[in-house]
Amino acid sequence: MKYCSQCGMTLILTIPEGDNRERHVCSGCQTIHYQNPKIVTGTLPVIGDKILLCRRAIEPRYGLWTLPAGFMENGESVLDAARRETWEEACTHTCREQLYMMISQPCINQVCMFYRAEIDTRYTEEPHFAAGQESLEVRLFDEQDIPWDKLAFPTITRTLELFFRDRINGKFPLREESL
Amino acid sequence: MKYCSQCGMTLILTIPEGDNRERHVCSGCQTIHYQNPKIVTGTLPVIGDKILLCRRAIEPRYGLWTLPAGFMENGESVLDAARRETWEEACTHTCREQLYMMISQPCINQVCMFYRAEIDTRYTEEPHFAAGQESLEVRLFDEQDIPWDKLAFPTITRTLELFFRDRINGKFPLREESL
Repeated sequence: MKYCSQCGMTLILTIPEGDNRERHVCSGCQTIHYQNPKIVTGTLPVIGDKILLCRRAIEPRYGLWTLPAGFMENGESVLDAARRETWEEACTHTCREQLYMMISQPCINQVCMFYRAEIDTRYTEEPHFAAGQESLEVRLFDEQDIPWDKLAFPTITRTLELFFRDRINGKFPLREESL
Repeated sequence: MKYCSQCGMTLILTIPEGDNRERHVCSGCQTIHYQNPKIVTGTLPVIGDKILLCRRAIEPRYGLWTLPAGFMENGESVLDAARRETWEEACTHTCREQLYMMISQPCINQVCMFYRAEIDTRYTEEPHFAAGQESLEVRLFDEQDIPWDKLAFPTITRTLELFFRDRINGKFPLREESL
């Protein structure tokens, strides 16, 4: 961050009056440019004993497996964003979503939120899913077939670990962690 | 947003290749400047039957009552941010925090998250709290004394409504709403 997005003048890194952190402040119009964490959200789509994973067709982690998820956009709710990402990456609709996992990642300024969700089969005989633009492949997995050594992100590994552990008791309290 | 924060050239509003939304893209270096929702987080501090509220010493909503909360910063977890805001605004430490309320506000691109929390009295005889820099006054309230017509934000009103309703049954499932 070098230039003011409002007036184009150079930015200075300084602690504004009344604040206690360094911010990028415009040397011209004095606008303070705050930077804040971003939300990544998605679903853990379930049907019966199986869960859905997507194999990434994009960097980072091209070719590795992930839950459908992505950056929340302006103008949507967290749940809407999770559903949109699930549709875009796995061409599947979900229902009965329950927020299950919230992982703060202070080192990369992200908060990751996953909903447990059921693949919606109300309007189709078979569960419908397919590879969206950002996926090479979308598949249903039994627990014993999860490609643990080919998962894309530590947030995915941790969410699946907790999910299978909680599934033994059939109780899924909200899990909150930092990674 | 008019100028590129990387190179200072003018921005163009356009849909980048492979995207489906308009973004601010630099006419010089081609950097795409994404804009995403911000997280506001705080606590609903409880001690016995009472809850803590702060009267705002800053705009917007100067003089009105709120739960201690504010924008999450880079480099912290959601819970750390909620604790920090509680300390800054109400000079109180909390413990046993449980995420209770998540309110998406797509119209203002914010996600608001409140933890139910206990005011920590492990190291003090009486609960310790005081007005921080951004508060005129900090007080404990019984339910019947809540200043419903002088609450600062609809997120506060809604969180307190649900809290007092859930308190009847002593169960506090995660509440998720859009406002």
